[in-house]
Amino acid sequence: MPQLRKDPVSNRWVIISTNRSKKPTDFMDGYDHEKKGGFCPFCYGNESKTAGEITAIRPSCSAPNTPGWEVRVIPNNFPVLMVEGELNRRGDGMYDMMDGIGAHEVIIETPEHDKNLADLPYEQVQKIIWIYKQRSQDLKNDSRFEYLLIFRNHGAAAGATISHPHSQLIATPIIPKRVFEEYSGAKQYFEYKERCVFCDVIRQEMKDAKRVILENKHFIAFAPFAPRFPFETWIIPKVHSADFMAINEEQSFELAKILKDTLLKIKGALNDPPYNYIIHTAPLRKTDGLFSHWHIEIIPKLTKVAGFEWGSGFYINPTTPEEAAKFLKEVEI
Amino acid sequence: MPQLRKDPVSNRWVIISTNRSKKPTDFMDGYDHEKKGGFCPFCYGNESKTAGEITAIRPSCSAPNTPGWEVRVIPNNFPVLMVEGELNRRGDGMYDMMDGIGAHEVIIETPEHDKNLADLPYEQVQKIIWIYKQRSQDLKNDSRFEYLLIFRNHGAAAGATISHPHSQLIATPIIPKRVFEEYSGAKQYFEYKERCVFCDVIRQEMKDAKRVILENKHFIAFAPFAPRFPFETWIIPKVHSADFMAINEEQSFELAKILKDTLLKIKGALNDPPYNYIIHTAPLRKTDGLFSHWHIEIIPKLTKVAGFEWGSGFYINPTTPEEAAKFLKEVEI
Repeated sequence: MPQLRKDPVSNRWVIISTNRSKKPTDFMDGYDHEKKGGFCPFCYGNESKTAGEITAIRPSCSAPNTPGWEVRVIPNNFPVLMVEGELNRRGDGMYDMMDGIGAHEVIIETPEHDKNLADLPYEQVQKIIWIYKQRSQDLKNDSRFEYLLIFRNHGAAAGATISHPHSQLIATPIIPKRVFEEYSGAKQYFEYKERCVFCDVIRQEMKDAKRVILENKHFIAFAPFAPRFPFETWIIPKVHSADFMAINEEQSFELAKILKDTLLKIKGALNDPPYNYIIHTAPLRKTDGLFSHWHIEIIPKLTKVAGFEWGSGFYINPTTPEEAAKFLKEVEI
Repeated sequence: MPQLRKDPVSNRWVIISTNRSKKPTDFMDGYDHEKKGGFCPFCYGNESKTAGEITAIRPSCSAPNTPGWEVRVIPNNFPVLMVEGELNRRGDGMYDMMDGIGAHEVIIETPEHDKNLADLPYEQVQKIIWIYKQRSQDLKNDSRFEYLLIFRNHGAAAGATISHPHSQLIATPIIPKRVFEEYSGAKQYFEYKERCVFCDVIRQEMKDAKRVILENKHFIAFAPFAPRFPFETWIIPKVHSADFMAINEEQSFELAKILKDTLLKIKGALNDPPYNYIIHTAPLRKTDGLFSHWHIEIIPKLTKVAGFEWGSGFYINPTTPEEAAKFLKEVEI
């Protein structure tokens, strides 16, 4: 059973992942590498090699765990948190811990092994977004969970270990540190200004125009004013919405368009860089918030994070967001 | 002039480093690599190729910026913050920013290009520590600075771009986010318990004994209870001390011993892995704190940080600290 342990100084929880347990010798040959070629458990015909599917978009005539699906959701074979059990909160001397309860699912985005999310049709990206929403709605019903983190790792340097296009969803029994900070920061702003900080950011960005990369009816994609990383890009709904799960069908298509187009611009501009994207949404039990405002943060992995950043949480970014936005804006897709 | 910009939600400052400005094309050929072989500006005979030395440990007969030194401190050729100027705090619409004022120094740890800090004699490591202290004392006199961050990047994957052994010191005009969190967390604990949280951790660790790797008269090296990374190791003075600068000569020798021995164990156990170490000390204007407790955090770079961690600040560590400590304890050096 994995454990959740809390650092007594910063109150940051970490997962000690016994399911992925590594002994010193496992690190000896250097980095993990993305598996390329050979057997792929996410391809058509290999459905029986994964745990049974949780849901899938597939023709009504096709049986679960057989080919024919368009998007398929399965439990992660090496889950960082386990779905069965109770939290069992306890102390160990001065320290706090609990069992590593949660859910860890994989969203296989397409049967096409060599495709990139940026290359899929808008309609397919919309289906992926819709599955994100459906899985979120289902997992919200489990009262043990406090947060749902949906993310995508693209490329080995961004942490992908299987190259077949997929996203992941982790349901956590605590509100993770960064999420809580974002929530608290937005709450503090709201208490001071009586306005959502993200709504203010959107107004400021649309007025300044110099950091906006793309815009459509419901969303803008922009380089934030104080990005941690070069070409960091956020996609945010223009109208206030705390909760990603509240997205409707029309909005999901607009999101599919701006997400695909933004990723295509990043791919074209930076030679298909490794990247992560993460959906930031309201904590599960606080989805009626006036100040949470869901959005997607895309982080291309172009620089290494070194001692200064680890030690300080103080990031050095060699590219101004104005330059990054101008460059991405001009990339033809 | 580099800029400091504040994220309006999390209140995290970032450095937009115009001195290291990178255009999109600079990222095209993938990662920076550590320069190996060829010209080294940190070797004997190349002193004139760096900015003039700030201080050095050298025989009294030898002139500055000539060979003969044992430890040499120079300004970084590509400083992330500039020492000349005023902060010039200002708004840009709803956003906050200031000029990137600070100091960025390089401590060249030995004239021997191919040595590793772990291979240097205790006496040499002590000299490096003493230089850390001297530079800190000098920079504290500059009232523009709020924090001094001393760190070391070892290996390209940990962010080192020059392989000649060196550490860095960055003086910042703000208290960086992680430092402030540590300070606030320790303060909150002190207000609740009327004890230093780090002193409690030391007592707990010495009692449990299962995470302690090394111990000498003044220090212990241990794997923290909730480490973010495999083989994360902290070195901490046993007796309460807020401020690294308060270290005396005897303590500095004990620190040199435990630092070198810990790094040697990590090198031996994990095949000379890339790592970062960072000295955590009290904010400059709060060095009389009852609850800050300085220490060194050593982070071997064995895993990749992926979307889940970036998005959540919630780290997945595949190695228990008990296993890591046991393994390092048993490594013969």
